[in-house]
Amino acid sequence: MYLEQINGPEDVKKLSGEQLTKLAAEMRQVLLKRASIHGGHFGPNFGMVEVTIALHYVFESPKDKIVYDVSHQTYPHKMLTGRKDAYLYEEHYDDVTGYSSPQESEHDHFTVGHTSTSVSLACGLAKGRDLNGGGGNVIAVIGDGSLSGGEALEGLDFAAELESNLIIVVNDNDMSIAENHGGLYSNLKLLRETKGEAECNLFRAMGLDYVYVDEGNNIDVLIKAFQSVKDSTKPVVVHIKTQKGKGYAPAEKDKESWHYNAPFNIETGEPLGVPQGEDYSDITAKFLLEKMKKDPSVVAITSATPTVLGFTKDKREEAGKQFVDVGIAEETAVALASGIAANGGKPVWGVYSTFVQRTYDQIAQDLCINNNAATIVTFCGTVYGMNDVTHLGLYDIPMMANIPNLVYLAPATKEEYLAMLDWSLEQTDHPVAIRLPGGPVISDGRKVTKDFSDLNQYEITQKGSRVAVVGLGTFYSLGQSVAKELEEKTGTKATVINPYYITGIDQEMLEDLKKDHDIVITLEDGILDGGFGEKITRFYGDSEMKVLNYGLKKEFLDRYDAAEVLKDNRLTKEQITEDVMKLM
Amino acid sequence: MYLEQINGPEDVKKLSGEQLTKLAAEMRQVLLKRASIHGGHFGPNFGMVEVTIALHYVFESPKDKIVYDVSHQTYPHKMLTGRKDAYLYEEHYDDVTGYSSPQESEHDHFTVGHTSTSVSLACGLAKGRDLNGGGGNVIAVIGDGSLSGGEALEGLDFAAELESNLIIVVNDNDMSIAENHGGLYSNLKLLRETKGEAECNLFRAMGLDYVYVDEGNNIDVLIKAFQSVKDSTKPVVVHIKTQKGKGYAPAEKDKESWHYNAPFNIETGEPLGVPQGEDYSDITAKFLLEKMKKDPSVVAITSATPTVLGFTKDKREEAGKQFVDVGIAEETAVALASGIAANGGKPVWGVYSTFVQRTYDQIAQDLCINNNAATIVTFCGTVYGMNDVTHLGLYDIPMMANIPNLVYLAPATKEEYLAMLDWSLEQTDHPVAIRLPGGPVISDGRKVTKDFSDLNQYEITQKGSRVAVVGLGTFYSLGQSVAKELEEKTGTKATVINPYYITGIDQEMLEDLKKDHDIVITLEDGILDGGFGEKITRFYGDSEMKVLNYGLKKEFLDRYDAAEVLKDNRLTKEQITEDVMKLM
Repeated sequence: MYLEQINGPEDVKKLSGEQLTKLAAEMRQVLLKRASIHGGHFGPNFGMVEVTIALHYVFESPKDKIVYDVSHQTYPHKMLTGRKDAYLYEEHYDDVTGYSSPQESEHDHFTVGHTSTSVSLACGLAKGRDLNGGGGNVIAVIGDGSLSGGEALEGLDFAAELESNLIIVVNDNDMSIAENHGGLYSNLKLLRETKGEAECNLFRAMGLDYVYVDEGNNIDVLIKAFQSVKDSTKPVVVHIKTQKGKGYAPAEKDKESWHYNAPFNIETGEPLGVPQGEDYSDITAKFLLEKMKKDPSVVAITSATPTVLGFTKDKREEAGKQFVDVGIAEETAVALASGIAANGGKPVWGVYSTFVQRTYDQIAQDLCINNNAATIVTFCGTVYGMNDVTHLGLYDIPMMANIPNLVYLAPATKEEYLAMLDWSLEQTDHPVAIRLPGGPVISDGRKVTKDFSDLNQYEITQKGSRVAVVGLGTFYSLGQSVAKELEEKTGTKATVINPYYITGIDQEMLEDLKKDHDIVITLEDGILDGGFGEKITRFYGDSEMKVLNYGLKKEFLDRYDAAEVLKDNRLTKEQITEDVMKLM
Repeated sequence: MYLEQINGPEDVKKLSGEQLTKLAAEMRQVLLKRASIHGGHFGPNFGMVEVTIALHYVFESPKDKIVYDVSHQTYPHKMLTGRKDAYLYEEHYDDVTGYSSPQESEHDHFTVGHTSTSVSLACGLAKGRDLNGGGGNVIAVIGDGSLSGGEALEGLDFAAELESNLIIVVNDNDMSIAENHGGLYSNLKLLRETKGEAECNLFRAMGLDYVYVDEGNNIDVLIKAFQSVKDSTKPVVVHIKTQKGKGYAPAEKDKESWHYNAPFNIETGEPLGVPQGEDYSDITAKFLLEKMKKDPSVVAITSATPTVLGFTKDKREEAGKQFVDVGIAEETAVALASGIAANGGKPVWGVYSTFVQRTYDQIAQDLCINNNAATIVTFCGTVYGMNDVTHLGLYDIPMMANIPNLVYLAPATKEEYLAMLDWSLEQTDHPVAIRLPGGPVISDGRKVTKDFSDLNQYEITQKGSRVAVVGLGTFYSLGQSVAKELEEKTGTKATVINPYYITGIDQEMLEDLKKDHDIVITLEDGILDGGFGEKITRFYGDSEMKVLNYGLKKEFLDRYDAAEVLKDNRLTKEQITEDVMKLM
């Protein structure tokens, strides 16, 4: 195998055209096998094999610096830059992360996992080079799906100002995770159809030079294109047509499903894992579709991840105009929701915790200052969620819950969630966000009759004394376990509280606890800094009440084991009970 | 005066073409007089007089809904929609805000003060209309300067998806606050030069229909253009060339200075106010320019507000390639800074607290996960800063200080600031942000020798007992006053602490205080929720220490009086001393 001999880009340069083509075929086989066993981002990498080979054939990485957007297409790059073993050998599959990583290799320049950042980051590398009088090419690689994101469009606009070398490789496979959304894709289509000849050209309109490559999976053609722009003295876009999932029939056919995959049977493409039980995405889609049938003003919004809300293709068709995917454009999703709410609609934006981060200003300005009754549902805001450093769901509480006017709710069960979602859709007084709990869906069949309009009313679910346990969202059940453990160990029956509201405290209840409680503990599924528990501690600051806040340390975790992290943060019932007993 | 008879858009429609032209002249006179006495946004409004008249002549506001970007060009709109008195009569000047406001009028649909949001918000209004089967036009008005912002470009891209009525009016005066930056402006120039005929067209490339109006200050022409797009069944851009500051010679000549103005002499254009003393912008520019001369890798970055860093036109020229204005593109500013730092440069991004909000994800992902040593200087993060609801500087602590890896510093004096800035530029271990204090610049001449690399080392500046006062940044001097007041009232000499670090606590010092202190008070210039003080309270949660946190309530204030707000939040030395004495 040629791949076995590739220890770095210098080895790519030794191969002939024919050998490079064989290398591409090998890389696809290796990618396919690894994907079938390990899972990962599939389609984007399969389309980029030849482009990556050609990049490393023509440019001199790491002197020439390649910045990959969102990293979904970095696997071939990793294979050619000293990390082939992590693709060739099953026992080494976990030696690399799924994202570009300077810790892994001098050929990676940033840890990247959110989309639409590569052009602006590459502008920075180029400017740093120019300030110090250095040389070398800077290359940003960006997929067509990422182009709709605000930061990417800002970057394309700014790039022209550099007036020096910057090569922007646009990998156009005519897909985002799902289909692309937005008017610029009609221009990409026009450019593909005219082989780059159309006068109306988004990139030229942004002040950039432009080269089109029609045969984006032909190594020879790609090498010539890259040679033609190498050492360019001004920013230039190389627009390359590739095929997402190329080389694996099921992935070529169903590009959306094969953007990312779990382990699967290579022969059939069928997933190997047993289908999981009910999840919050399915629950949400079912609920919203029923609502939509009764109420034409209900509309579900996603930003390039339609399935976060459970809206698979069939459900999107069922919803019709009542489903909107804005593409990768989270800021616009929030503004859109605010505008819809301002004009009589009932919008629900579904978003992963890690991506809601892209909209602080839109939540504050477009939504909350205007106090429009839009609903945000935050998925995977939990230690049990995605665990790559770029995709953590541990920060949305400090980010969102300190924005005035927002009502941020934390259900502990499916029933609480649906009651909150229903309430939120029907009220017109507040912007509302709902943070879904982590771990398996808990359904207790309880009918939730609480009126969430009475803001910040916590609920005592077990009345005890001396110790009160406030368990937020995911950790409400941990709170129950702590109370049980404590009673078993000490005979003290603790008070257990479901706070529901992340954004405010129940002053009356907290005041009342002073009568017959000495210790309050708070439990939250996220970092402690700026979070929920600290507000309760502040309330008790001038009193005799002892308060212990449990949550995670402020840090960037990466590919962690949730159980270990919880233990490290003393978030097991045994550890908490031990701490409380010491204090009693 | 015709203007005196305009009580709403219906009165505009009654006027003849000649009368409308006279109305425009009157509006300019009224704007000029008010601006000379009251100050406000100048240039954008002067250019938009005719466009606004034509909009209200053709469309049926409020059934047809007009959304103004950033609101800098809403004064003529306010004059024609029932709020003329606030422009005609000095005693009513403060009856209106400087921004669009649904509280003021049914003709305003959002409270807007940050740029680049109008297209996405208008998409929401249009979608809300379509869901409910309603009619009417939705019109977004956006200035060319705002087009470079990510949310605006996302909005333009998304708009095509609506497939229904949306009219995007681009007010092209060839200026942002300062000159425009970015490649798209070369396309706007091409379109102006070809009277909209050029094939390469940013708006068409975004999938939108397009109409060009060359005579953007000619009411007749504007009326015809708007009539041609009224009730359009798909999104269309009306690109209008206007003249910023039109009608006032000094403003036509120096567009940057006349974007916003303080009260001035109409005859000469000279400002009436006495020039203020030294401010942090001047101090920063002076320091950075000296640094730049010695070190070619130092680079100052701003995002359309170059003077926030003190970089007036002459200083920008002096800095040459070592100054970069990215235009309105805050996200790109952060990514650019991160990239420069990753490639050997020393970037400093200067930004107002209210606009740093636009970059949560970029600070977290592009900068802090990558731990690149870029510097952010946050201006006006204080109760003494801008006081419009859309421009508050009270939230940057909860937003930024809970992001891992960031070192967020709070100087109390000019000397501390410059020592921090110098340290930050020369170190390579951390992303650093520095929050400038509010109020007049305090300079104590003290030589600061502290090594800020030893993170989270607070400083005891007065050793006392029983009570410790931790005064952060702006409020360090309030802390000193409280200690003095307390000593006078009770004889107790309090410990006074300058914490310097917003992002971490000095555990050792805080632990040590337990020995001979019963009360700790924290003072911070921002909201308490998610802020600095709560972290200290959490530290003491399980101890006997009483902690009082002082700062602002989480709320959206608007056009407030700082002294009143401080009093309402018990932030005077007398109130704090009273509270402490009660607790002692």
